[in-house]
Amino acid sequence: MVKEVVLGIDIGGSFTKVGIVTKEGNILSKTVFKTNAQKPFSPFMEKLKLEIENLISTSGPDIQIRSIGVGAPNANSYTGQIENPPNLNWGKTTPIAKIIHESFKFPVILANDANAAALGEMLFGAAKGMKNFIALTLGTGLGSGIVINGEILNGEHGFAGELGHVNVHPNGRACNCGLKGCLETYASVTGIKRTVFELMATMRENSPLRNISFEDMTGTVISEAALNGDTIALTAFEKTGEILGSKMADTVAHLDPEAFILSGGLSKAGAILLNPIKNRMESHLFNAYKGKIRVLLSTATSANAVLGPAALAWMAIEKNHGA
Amino acid sequence: MVKEVVLGIDIGGSFTKVGIVTKEGNILSKTVFKTNAQKPFSPFMEKLKLEIENLISTSGPDIQIRSIGVGAPNANSYTGQIENPPNLNWGKTTPIAKIIHESFKFPVILANDANAAALGEMLFGAAKGMKNFIALTLGTGLGSGIVINGEILNGEHGFAGELGHVNVHPNGRACNCGLKGCLETYASVTGIKRTVFELMATMRENSPLRNISFEDMTGTVISEAALNGDTIALTAFEKTGEILGSKMADTVAHLDPEAFILSGGLSKAGAILLNPIKNRMESHLFNAYKGKIRVLLSTATSANAVLGPAALAWMAIEKNHGA
Repeated sequence: MVKEVVLGIDIGGSFTKVGIVTKEGNILSKTVFKTNAQKPFSPFMEKLKLEIENLISTSGPDIQIRSIGVGAPNANSYTGQIENPPNLNWGKTTPIAKIIHESFKFPVILANDANAAALGEMLFGAAKGMKNFIALTLGTGLGSGIVINGEILNGEHGFAGELGHVNVHPNGRACNCGLKGCLETYASVTGIKRTVFELMATMRENSPLRNISFEDMTGTVISEAALNGDTIALTAFEKTGEILGSKMADTVAHLDPEAFILSGGLSKAGAILLNPIKNRMESHLFNAYKGKIRVLLSTATSANAVLGPAALAWMAIEKNHGA
Repeated sequence: MVKEVVLGIDIGGSFTKVGIVTKEGNILSKTVFKTNAQKPFSPFMEKLKLEIENLISTSGPDIQIRSIGVGAPNANSYTGQIENPPNLNWGKTTPIAKIIHESFKFPVILANDANAAALGEMLFGAAKGMKNFIALTLGTGLGSGIVINGEILNGEHGFAGELGHVNVHPNGRACNCGLKGCLETYASVTGIKRTVFELMATMRENSPLRNISFEDMTGTVISEAALNGDTIALTAFEKTGEILGSKMADTVAHLDPEAFILSGGLSKAGAILLNPIKNRMESHLFNAYKGKIRVLLSTATSANAVLGPAALAWMAIEKNHGA
């Protein structure tokens, strides 16, 4: 029997992942390659085409591809374009949905990577059965996908859900976007790294982190130090969680969601990050929300990023069938 | 010919307004009475019944009431109840939709007052033709109604859109809600009054405001002083506008709306308030939103509060007809 599947493509600043995914969220086969984001779009597209063709040819004749879902940074669902990506050297706009469609003839649907991740959690992960929640991807930056009544919030111009650029301090840290004090300069892998360097300047405690240069410092190193009881690393997680938790309380005052789902490198620290987030968020919540908002870790897209764009594709198929 | 109308009821902490409103937003007749919020619910309900009966009986035989819309503070659309109102001495919950329905037999629909105001602007005012916007009511407190794809955002528990309780300073002004630093302690009539007293303490300039006690100070007095060029009053409006503008930029990063519509006592100051709001919001906006978000004054509900609940009623009628 022929099995209906979709192709999920997750384009990241470092790696691009492609997977063949069933309606139940089973990944039949997958591949990963370097995005080479500093190079132009055309060699990336050639590589993507090759990888997809290879993936399809090795999957046997008994699959039927229904659609392709693409998650990418700075992607606009309304236009099908990637627009002004600060971390991809592809120029101002790339009509990637159209280009992929012309190569493979399947229907292509594009979304911001964090929005795709939100759908991945809703169909296959921690947000199963939820209709109102927010997915936060805590990686190099802070991405967010807002789901309202079971659908991604796109907003008037296609750019809703940029919670990475909510303000923490009016004269705070310089952000890649040109603003100052954006949440992602604190609550992301890059953010906690900056916090560690601030703490090494203000605290006196010894720490193995003091032997590592700024360029060599990684989220993994900081997490490991924290798990070994290092005071500076633990303080960095506490401060990061407190800042994120207080801003999540503001997000609740906007959206009144059921839950937040956290994914990305920083979320792998688990309770060390979750506890200060939950405590600070709860203490800052307006009465009507107290005790009602859950904070959960991703169970789908953190491990398998292609589940986000795959969910995007499956939801578009269901919608077109008027389901 | 019989004219179809709805009854709009706007319950405020000080006054309750009732009006008979056509589908076009014409108010055929209206009445106002004191809410007497410190008294229990039953004398209020008796008075409301009397006022409605009187309004209907003087409106002649050629109107047909289709429905009743009610806007009230702390109203929950999902339950039809007013829940834990800090400014109404009616107890923990009042099932007001059910009670009004039992008195008059018309369908009754209830919403938070700021949500009703948002619908009033969408059907009859400054938000005509818009699908994604936020209405801010700057009165004693700061109320907000969020419209997404032409519908009020209610959230998972019925309490979305409490922007008055977004945090400005972690250790800021004490709020009625028990939290510290809530936006409504700065950006409301009460908020600007507190700012004036802070400025009288920190600044040296003479001002007629220095002759007025805290209890006697009103928003109107501050607005008049500002229009007369008083430095303290002008500085207060500037600071208020800057705080509100910076938080509106955060709201844009959540919702990507088309516009904000401002109503309520504070908004009557016009450009003195609007200019610092617009400047600060624009300078704090993430690139994707710059130059795209409008800030407008209410053209319907500021003058006629019953247009909010009337719009609520008309929209419910259209929805029931599958329009």
